[in-house]
Amino acid sequence: MFENASRTEISTLGEFKLIDHLTKNITLRNNTLKGVGDDAAVIEHENGLCNLVSTDLLVEGVHFDLSYFPLKHLGYKAVAVNLSDIYAMNGRPKQITVALALSSKFSLEAVEELYEGIYLACEKYQVDLVGGDTSTSKHGLTICITAIGEANKEEIAYRNGASANELLVVSGDLGGAYAGYQLLEREKRVFLDNPAAQPDLTGHDYILERQLKPEPRKDIIDILKNLQIIPTSMIDVSDGLASECFHLASQSMLGLTLYEEKIPIDPTTYNFARELDLDPTLFALSGGEDYELLFTINQSDFEKIEHHPDFTIIGHMNELTEGIKMVSKSGNIHDLKAQGWTAF
Amino acid sequence: MFENASRTEISTLGEFKLIDHLTKNITLRNNTLKGVGDDAAVIEHENGLCNLVSTDLLVEGVHFDLSYFPLKHLGYKAVAVNLSDIYAMNGRPKQITVALALSSKFSLEAVEELYEGIYLACEKYQVDLVGGDTSTSKHGLTICITAIGEANKEEIAYRNGASANELLVVSGDLGGAYAGYQLLEREKRVFLDNPAAQPDLTGHDYILERQLKPEPRKDIIDILKNLQIIPTSMIDVSDGLASECFHLASQSMLGLTLYEEKIPIDPTTYNFARELDLDPTLFALSGGEDYELLFTINQSDFEKIEHHPDFTIIGHMNELTEGIKMVSKSGNIHDLKAQGWTAF
Repeated sequence: MFENASRTEISTLGEFKLIDHLTKNITLRNNTLKGVGDDAAVIEHENGLCNLVSTDLLVEGVHFDLSYFPLKHLGYKAVAVNLSDIYAMNGRPKQITVALALSSKFSLEAVEELYEGIYLACEKYQVDLVGGDTSTSKHGLTICITAIGEANKEEIAYRNGASANELLVVSGDLGGAYAGYQLLEREKRVFLDNPAAQPDLTGHDYILERQLKPEPRKDIIDILKNLQIIPTSMIDVSDGLASECFHLASQSMLGLTLYEEKIPIDPTTYNFARELDLDPTLFALSGGEDYELLFTINQSDFEKIEHHPDFTIIGHMNELTEGIKMVSKSGNIHDLKAQGWTAF
Repeated sequence: MFENASRTEISTLGEFKLIDHLTKNITLRNNTLKGVGDDAAVIEHENGLCNLVSTDLLVEGVHFDLSYFPLKHLGYKAVAVNLSDIYAMNGRPKQITVALALSSKFSLEAVEELYEGIYLACEKYQVDLVGGDTSTSKHGLTICITAIGEANKEEIAYRNGASANELLVVSGDLGGAYAGYQLLEREKRVFLDNPAAQPDLTGHDYILERQLKPEPRKDIIDILKNLQIIPTSMIDVSDGLASECFHLASQSMLGLTLYEEKIPIDPTTYNFARELDLDPTLFALSGGEDYELLFTINQSDFEKIEHHPDFTIIGHMNELTEGIKMVSKSGNIHDLKAQGWTAF
């Protein structure tokens, strides 16, 4: 059945182009304010209240490696990354559904561990687990979580709302999750070469936690509300800063300038990248999985966040014709490359 | 990591007990009116409007066999079974999200076929595809769809709302989807034995369509509204009539009597079961995948549906102490057995 006359490999498109291709002719018939193309879909109700909906799929061997990823952490992270999509719309997650496909290698005790992590995240972020599905699978574990959130229509931050000259801001620091991933992969290789070896993870708590137990930035949504800032555009950093910059700029039909020296990188992340003879900036630009929030604000909000410890202004939006650029530490200006992690 | 001191195989519990076990201590914190345990979760809004949410996972090799299931039909069916869960709450589906994990055996053209079926179902049932996720997988195809619907709070039909002496009603006819499955499996075996053999599917259009292109019963929800009937309890027939009878009875804390001779079975289904020397009643009771609606109504609504061609009264609810019984065609009364199809 797969011997079509013409066969196009999906890998030639990549995830984003595949989604664009499959969804380009979508018709919206109902109370859908925003469909495919943002962190979450937006469903509008009569009173101006909107529901936000986001779905993520995690596949064993593609998104996680159970040889070093504890199931409890996996459950927590699977919820966290979905909630992050709701926060990225400036909304509040309220419910999740969890669908699991499990091969027979998983015992009840293993599934209980996974759910322990799921419930822990639900408690921490005050979300209800309201449904789902559980099935057997032929191979490994697949987790599909849908998060449902709320926001008032006028508060929602889309990817496409930025204007030229607005400031580009990011929460927290970047590259840590990828550093943690590199560390775990390194220790796995050591273990495979010599099963008697003990993993050397000391002194790396921060980057390990960034990889194994990411926290979606609910606190940032609270802070922005207190500061009376509604971001003009927003996205969460799941694929890497460069990829997210491209999403904000292209969907807002703008250019953008990013300053390398401004990109916030934790010393632990920086030092570990250097230890591997790799460029820390690349960890931030292309590593992904940091689940920080990247957003734009009007210049009039500059003073509200200028000295705020949770925020860093890393660039600004430009006219479309000026392109998407990065000013390197040495002062050179070059085109930013989106080498986001891709699932294909 | 799976070498726990104690290891319990999931297969010893089955799907329903596993879900019960994992969700027994759930805390609901938000505007969730109904969480796990019905066809869909119910989220309440201020104005009495509710959202309904249901998630289903379909796994290649477990829920479908691509050697005879065309991808376009699979896409259609994946949407249909989710919408059925929303109709089973007496609600109206409005949006879906679609998450896919695809191995490299799937070409772009194959994925396009799958989406053709998805969009066809969206068009027919006037639903918006609003988001999702697309990922690679190591093995085969997994589809996770979440449907979001609407209903007014007072119209929602739960599984647990039935009372003793109410009438048990089913739409359409039962067992056809399982007959179609048996036919397709038979022809597959013939083909595997002799690859030159042509499948013999003539005269079996109805049961094939029941298996390959099930239609969720939106029309029944419309008819019930026109008849001014709100079912006191309702469920869709996904696992087989017996299993669904158990859900309605146990969740309503009642007994139930089912009359075998009343169970609606299409002649095509009946004849094909007989051809295989199998009991047509068993197809209806345990086959599943018919996606008809099983519901209870007050006796005062009897005359509204007595002669309606889309409905069959197949039994009635009893007090809990009377148990869950079937009166056979020969007049014997015995305990109904729930041998619902299980994913474990």
